[in-house]
Amino acid sequence: AGDPAAGQAKAAVCAACHGADGKAVIPGYPNLAGQNELYLVNSMKAYRSGDRKPVGNGAVMAGQAAALSDADIENLAAYFAAMAN
Amino acid sequence: AGDPAAGQAKAAVCAACHGADGKAVIPGYPNLAGQNELYLVNSMKAYRSGDRKPVGNGAVMAGQAAALSDADIENLAAYFAAMAN
Repeated sequence: AGDPAAGQAKAAVCAACHGADGKAVIPGYPNLAGQNELYLVNSMKAYRSGDRKPVGNGAVMAGQAAALSDADIENLAAYFAAMAN
Repeated sequence: AGDPAAGQAKAAVCAACHGADGKAVIPGYPNLAGQNELYLVNSMKAYRSGDRKPVGNGAVMAGQAAALSDADIENLAAYFAAMAN
């Protein structure tokens, strides 16, 4: 599993849409706080690979995920999954 | 917005994967409790239209969503969004 602390260091940019507390600040964006860790890993990897096409507001996600390494993804998933919701 | 009570009546089948309390019972499946309502609507519609391809464990979602009307989707989204998480 990933390292939540390392995930937190990586998560500043995520807060713009998903909220510093993991609660979406933009309607239509998913809350991430307390989400299932493996689901988060699969989702980010699918955005990065293009398997998951952004739907509706999600167009920005492909660009965000493209810049993430596997370790980044594991750490971000651990960070948000552990976040109280 | 949808009607959570009508959503609850429709949600029995969802519980098998997403949990009766909206917490995924299968790792890799998303928790739905307290998720953003519009995100849930967009996701179910995207599974139904095929815009969102199931990734990993999500193959079953296309079949589930195919059977849902717009009203079903609105009601299910309201039900899970209102669910305490």
